[in-house]
Amino acid sequence: GVLGSGDFARSLAVRLVCSGFKVVVGSRNPKRKASLFPAAAEVTFQAEAVKKADVIFVAIFREHYSTLCDLADVLVGKILVDVSNNIEINHHKESNAEYLASLFPACTVVKGFNVISAWTLQSGARDGNKQVLICSNNQEAKRTVAEIAQVMGFTPVDMGCMSSACEIENIPLRLLPAWKIPIFLALGLFLCFFTYNLIRQVIHPYIREEKNKLYKIPIEVVNTTLPCVSYVMLSLVYLPGVLAACSQLYYGTKYRRFPDWLDQWLQHRKQIGLLSFFCAALHAVYSLCLPMRRSHRYLLIETAVKQAVEKKMTIWVEEEVWRMEIYISVGIIALGLLSLLAITSLPSIANSLNWREFSFIQ
Amino acid sequence: GVLGSGDFARSLAVRLVCSGFKVVVGSRNPKRKASLFPAAAEVTFQAEAVKKADVIFVAIFREHYSTLCDLADVLVGKILVDVSNNIEINHHKESNAEYLASLFPACTVVKGFNVISAWTLQSGARDGNKQVLICSNNQEAKRTVAEIAQVMGFTPVDMGCMSSACEIENIPLRLLPAWKIPIFLALGLFLCFFTYNLIRQVIHPYIREEKNKLYKIPIEVVNTTLPCVSYVMLSLVYLPGVLAACSQLYYGTKYRRFPDWLDQWLQHRKQIGLLSFFCAALHAVYSLCLPMRRSHRYLLIETAVKQAVEKKMTIWVEEEVWRMEIYISVGIIALGLLSLLAITSLPSIANSLNWREFSFIQ
Amino acid sequence: GVLGSGDFARSLAVRLVCSGFKVVVGSRNPKRKASLFPAAAEVTFQAEAVKKADVIFVAIFREHYSTLCDLADVLVGKILVDVSNNIEINHHKESNAEYLASLFPACTVVKGFNVISAWTLQSGARDGNKQVLICSNNQEAKRTVAEIAQVMGFTPVDMGCMSSACEIENIPLRLLPAWKIPIFLALGLFLCFFTYNLIRQVIHPYIREEKNKLYKIPIEVVNTTLPCVSYVMLSLVYLPGVLAACSQLYYGTKYRRFPDWLDQWLQHRKQIGLLSFFCAALHAVYSLCLPMRRSHRYLLIETAVKQAVEKKMTIWVEEEVWRMEIYISVGIIALGLLSLLAITSLPSIANSLNWREFSFIQ
Repeated sequence: GVLGSGDFARSLAVRLVCSGFKVVVGSRNPKRKASLFPAAAEVTFQAEAVKKADVIFVAIFREHYSTLCDLADVLVGKILVDVSNNIEINHHKESNAEYLASLFPACTVVKGFNVISAWTLQSGARDGNKQVLICSNNQEAKRTVAEIAQVMGFTPVDMGCMSSACEIENIPLRLLPAWKIPIFLALGLFLCFFTYNLIRQVIHPYIREEKNKLYKIPIEVVNTTLPCVSYVMLSLVYLPGVLAACSQLYYGTKYRRFPDWLDQWLQHRKQIGLLSFFCAALHAVYSLCLPMRRSHRYLLIETAVKQAVEKKMTIWVEEEVWRMEIYISVGIIALGLLSLLAITSLPSIANSLNWREFSFIQ
Repeated sequence: GVLGSGDFARSLAVRLVCSGFKVVVGSRNPKRKASLFPAAAEVTFQAEAVKKADVIFVAIFREHYSTLCDLADVLVGKILVDVSNNIEINHHKESNAEYLASLFPACTVVKGFNVISAWTLQSGARDGNKQVLICSNNQEAKRTVAEIAQVMGFTPVDMGCMSSACEIENIPLRLLPAWKIPIFLALGLFLCFFTYNLIRQVIHPYIREEKNKLYKIPIEVVNTTLPCVSYVMLSLVYLPGVLAACSQLYYGTKYRRFPDWLDQWLQHRKQIGLLSFFCAALHAVYSLCLPMRRSHRYLLIETAVKQAVEKKMTIWVEEEVWRMEIYISVGIIALGLLSLLAITSLPSIANSLNWREFSFIQ
Repeated sequence: GVLGSGDFARSLAVRLVCSGFKVVVGSRNPKRKASLFPAAAEVTFQAEAVKKADVIFVAIFREHYSTLCDLADVLVGKILVDVSNNIEINHHKESNAEYLASLFPACTVVKGFNVISAWTLQSGARDGNKQVLICSNNQEAKRTVAEIAQVMGFTPVDMGCMSSACEIENIPLRLLPAWKIPIFLALGLFLCFFTYNLIRQVIHPYIREEKNKLYKIPIEVVNTTLPCVSYVMLSLVYLPGVLAACSQLYYGTKYRRFPDWLDQWLQHRKQIGLLSFFCAALHAVYSLCLPMRRSHRYLLIETAVKQAVEKKMTIWVEEEVWRMEIYISVGIIALGLLSLLAITSLPSIANSLNWREFSFIQ
């Protein structure tokens, strides 16, 4: 059974019918809504629909849960599946599923399917392996809903008892939570190093020698800033592991919890590492662009003209040549290794490696 | 039971034996074929094999289905699994599975396993998460076959009733259907812009000033063409979304179907976007190669020599310097952002994001 | 039931409790260890724990299996799950699971869960699709354990009977086995070509013309070596397929096994191809870096000065210009095509293609 006639209710009905279930839809206005649902699904009044079904998907907004109170008698003993989402994180004190359970104490409430979008429901789980997180206080009901999810082509994941409902409801609302701190960190570091390099490469020669080198700001200053950021970020990836090991050695046990700041730091290592790689890759691209610039061309011609006028035939400085050759070749090798690291961080590659292989590469 | 002794029949028997099933193979010449099958599988005559098995995989070509008609009596009440494929899309009017069902009305026919290659069957589903699409008019039989697929290590996906058989049989024959239109579009745009740039950069100076600039064709003309194609394609990614929104506003409802051309366009956005990224990336590589060319070197030296002979010491043009610095730096930033977009289009990355995160990045 | 109190035993108990199972932990010192386990799990003496449970996870080292012999009476008829790993490949003659089975002939032993790390157990299978390889001689017991694995959120994969235990135990110990031969091959080829290019570009001019060109070693010599390695590796990807086809034509059958060396070669094609792409990509980066070098700058200025002093106004060589333009443009197109090949080798992309599409792209 499906209660509701919104986008999600319709997609759910389509998918259930396709998966071979008998579906009955409960609506307050069955005649007008019937055309929205597939022909194989029976659309009727709410009370009748509830009577005919054992498992009922409640696809209506939390605000309208109380309108179901008239159905309390027919709902006794049924399994209610709460598929609702919130508009903002922790909008209400208790989760929607717990609120529903408190309204209908005679029903078994299962939370699930809220992480699936209406679009995924309709297009099927064929492209990609979508997981359905499920939680409930009743093991039997949870297993029933898990089986329905499996037949629909999704992978049910048991998330334990009802108290996890809040966590499950917050999942579709999160916005890259693990990336927030690393991104602000990278921006902060970038600003610091950029200011330093700006003063050194542009403002200082302007004040001391009155040379106008403002043209260096968009590329050269950025290009000397990026590797600094990348280096510091890379060291921040490996530092917390060392600190954790020291802490374990100091306390002589590995069962002691790390302090919160260290724990959070350890969990953000992957993101910090990827941002470090991103900066390194940008630095490589900026460096490769240097000889394309008009300013590079002008400086080269000016030097050549100066040399020709002074009839100086050679300007070869062995030390400078070697320094540059070694800089570049070490840079390329470092970038190649970092690329390997970044590729093995892709989930699909990481899954095909065992723990020993992964730590070997890292 | 398995009927047939081709590659697929053998791989199927191997895999079923490995998964702990008792397998009986039916062949018209059991003695000669027995050596091809694993020792644990019993190889016998077709009629005997059919008697002993409840679920029978029909691993023979559609053309030979009629040879099974002698077995019609023993086949009564059995589940027949049609694993066949066609040689070309919609080769026959009705799907193989429907044809089999029409030959044996007393059997339950299930379509499945045709999307799995003999190689995947033998090597197991360990690397990758291979799906087995199943359809049948009989829910019980479908569930039985789905369970067999699951024990064999595959992920069964319910595709509804028998009328989907045709669709399932066409899947292994499709050849990147979603890419055809975007690729022709990109080629068409490339040709147009290439012709325009060829006339402007090579033919026009040749006719007006008799300058031979043919050497510009392989790199410079291509390099000015690629970003044009990339821009137009990128705009074609975002345009249909705007049109769809306008159409919804105009009709005042989101339940009205979009016209077919708009629907198709909306579905091809991802492919168009990736081709746009591919053109942009190629443009970046071409641009980076510009200073490597012999012609660049010669033009540089010629300018220097001319300046030196005329004793002109400075050729610095502030405006040109700034223009180039800004071009390059904006180009790098755009490429970095496009790379992010392309990476999040990888299925394994996209699956780990929720809808809100995905649309934020896009 | 869980026997043992190490990291793995604790993670297992946590996960089982979360998945809704009733867990009893057997320890030799239940009072001291109770605090390590979740509150919902009952921690008691080994004999009592065994009595209460039907399925018992043996999370202790192989060396201590014999200490369980006291429990032989209470273990009769139970299902024992061996989750142990070895320290090195083929350390013992028989696998741990077979050793356990020989100690307790009255029990049913199932091998499983050893490929899962304690960390994955605790964090859940949510990120990624972790497989649990299971084998046993008893189909019933295997199915029971597979169901437990499924409820815990993992994907059970049936690996057949007990003799596969050895193979399963070796999986977590392997270290990129498919990469060893290709990497040594690439290193060998690199060394050969590097020596040849070193002699040709540096040592030969030094001896014959006394020119010091040592600065070419880090970049130019490496850069001419990489494409040679890449070419030879790419040809090694396509050669075995041709040899296999020839062998099939010669013997007139496709059921004859290939010789072992050809079989191994065929299986390493993907790795050889990816290394070939890696060399080609490095070659591209090295080439792009050429104009950034100090030596490039000095040579350019020196040529310009020489021309200016001799008042030669033109140095344009049409043939050299064209050669370079074509080299670069063909190189870029080749790199673009190789990138497509490499991207479609990513497991998540390859899985979304059918066999026909994959072979078309390759």
